[in-house]
Amino acid sequence: MTPPEFRRDPLHNTWVVFAPERQRRPQDFAPATLQASTLDPFAEGSERLTPPEVYAIRKEKSKPNEPGWRVRVVPNRYPAMRIEGKLEASPVGLYDRVTGIGAHEVIIETPDGDVAMEELPVAAIGEILSCYRERILDLDKDPRFQHIYIFKNVGPSAGASLAHAHSQLVALPLIPPFVEGKLVRAREHYLLKQRSLFSDILHTEHADGSRLVTENDSFVLFCPFASRFPFELAIFPKRHHPDFVSCTPVELHDLAEILRFALERLSAVLEKPGYNLLLHTAPLWRPATERFASARHDYSWHLEIVPRFNSLAGFEIGLGACINTVYPEEAARFLRGEARS
Amino acid sequence: MTPPEFRRDPLHNTWVVFAPERQRRPQDFAPATLQASTLDPFAEGSERLTPPEVYAIRKEKSKPNEPGWRVRVVPNRYPAMRIEGKLEASPVGLYDRVTGIGAHEVIIETPDGDVAMEELPVAAIGEILSCYRERILDLDKDPRFQHIYIFKNVGPSAGASLAHAHSQLVALPLIPPFVEGKLVRAREHYLLKQRSLFSDILHTEHADGSRLVTENDSFVLFCPFASRFPFELAIFPKRHHPDFVSCTPVELHDLAEILRFALERLSAVLEKPGYNLLLHTAPLWRPATERFASARHDYSWHLEIVPRFNSLAGFEIGLGACINTVYPEEAARFLRGEARS
Repeated sequence: MTPPEFRRDPLHNTWVVFAPERQRRPQDFAPATLQASTLDPFAEGSERLTPPEVYAIRKEKSKPNEPGWRVRVVPNRYPAMRIEGKLEASPVGLYDRVTGIGAHEVIIETPDGDVAMEELPVAAIGEILSCYRERILDLDKDPRFQHIYIFKNVGPSAGASLAHAHSQLVALPLIPPFVEGKLVRAREHYLLKQRSLFSDILHTEHADGSRLVTENDSFVLFCPFASRFPFELAIFPKRHHPDFVSCTPVELHDLAEILRFALERLSAVLEKPGYNLLLHTAPLWRPATERFASARHDYSWHLEIVPRFNSLAGFEIGLGACINTVYPEEAARFLRGEARS
Repeated sequence: MTPPEFRRDPLHNTWVVFAPERQRRPQDFAPATLQASTLDPFAEGSERLTPPEVYAIRKEKSKPNEPGWRVRVVPNRYPAMRIEGKLEASPVGLYDRVTGIGAHEVIIETPDGDVAMEELPVAAIGEILSCYRERILDLDKDPRFQHIYIFKNVGPSAGASLAHAHSQLVALPLIPPFVEGKLVRAREHYLLKQRSLFSDILHTEHADGSRLVTENDSFVLFCPFASRFPFELAIFPKRHHPDFVSCTPVELHDLAEILRFALERLSAVLEKPGYNLLLHTAPLWRPATERFASARHDYSWHLEIVPRFNSLAGFEIGLGACINTVYPEEAARFLRGEARS
């Protein structure tokens, strides 16, 4: 079995993780379907069905890998990358290759397999977010990693294969060019204007107002001007900081509150759509990521929520552009409750 | 009704086409399903169900918009962009906006709704390809357009909503940054090495051999080193030229032959997978695209075929990276017939 590796080609400049352990033969390529919940490996009482936990928030006196947890983090049983091994980067002829080293963890958000994130109390969502923070702080100690990214797939249209509410964390030994592009654009904006791009976006959204959905003391929820997907949402912190881990307990509570509101509104307006939650934070601080040192001033962590209705088609795959059938101003009206379907 | 427009935001640098006519209310967001073929608007005899044709290859003496055609091109009934109107680009606060001007055409590949492209004779596929060429030559006359892209969605997993074999053409008033990235990387490679990136890729693939599937006099079919999707295929011409329209009749025949072979092998090995066909050709030559004048030396048109099994998930959407479970060397073995599933 060939071990996992990252590969890049010079035409597309896209890093691809080859993870052959995740699938074996051509006939295994059936589209993802949700597994029956009778086999739920994330349920309380089924702890032995997952690899041993790396972190959990538990009742006092409950033991690891036994019931009594509220949020539980385990390595992905089918990881895209492997945690063990030496990080090696090398050319392959014209191309580039990095050994498939990385962390791939699952954050099980609740012991109850029938509950969606937005159905949890704000405090429980706060615990999930603080779990994200703890895992980033822990994995930051591994010098092989340059970038940590947390995401959540809900529903088959968004790539989920299990219905039980969970998020995923990946720690990567490189910074994907798509992420680098956002960092570079934020830096260029700052160099040109001596203002943060994130501040300028929030300034524009407040001045316009038509795409705002709501805000609280710490965060603003809005539909981005160039939303790639219908009813796409962004949550920007009011206090800009490159690192998600800088969040205070009060900010995590405020984030849980506005995130719960966003997911509840999406679920109400669109009847429980599939969606992805995307948590973007700056690269880890390393000698190899020194080129992003300016992110301390010009970049901010942020969160995106993208409902997923249709498969991306040839237009999107080949052009890297999107067709969106709903203007964000219209989506915001629905999400604020001013328009009815 | 707000007319269609292109929008770009400074963080993602992704152009999004807002096409509100294509969908109306939140409840209309059901995932795409294939329409029953009894309502096939692309069938011979149902010509009145489409907008009037803009081009067709027909039997002698048959009349436009009547039976007797072999390939037929019509405007998309649900276009992402509008052909009528003035092209205007303007800032919106911090953001960028261009009026949603463009062509969006459908190339109906055969009168028979039950036949897949790879089931057509080579000569018939050659007629489809020559139709692509004719449409590009015609739309090139419209000075508003900067870039033409042709793609094909097959199966719901690849975003198709109709089963009848068809391709789509879009003519855009801008060059998407994803496309620009490929052009810039090809130029940088040429400036550094005085060799075409496309030649160097073919050189590497021939020297290695493990990812080659087949070749003929004019084309090479191979699985790219950093394939983003399982069983992804690329077809590169041996005679590099930026413009697809430069193809000679012999080259179009050779392309039809190798394309038919590629689709037949995919269909046999993977049991008729959904896929996208992507035809990349250089931007149209305009004063506004002068920055790509060097593409005459350093870029080549090319074709990609990407099978689509699973929805793109949070990993792909947020990182612009991919997880692929099949190494291209393994895919090529299957496609050459050396490995069996």
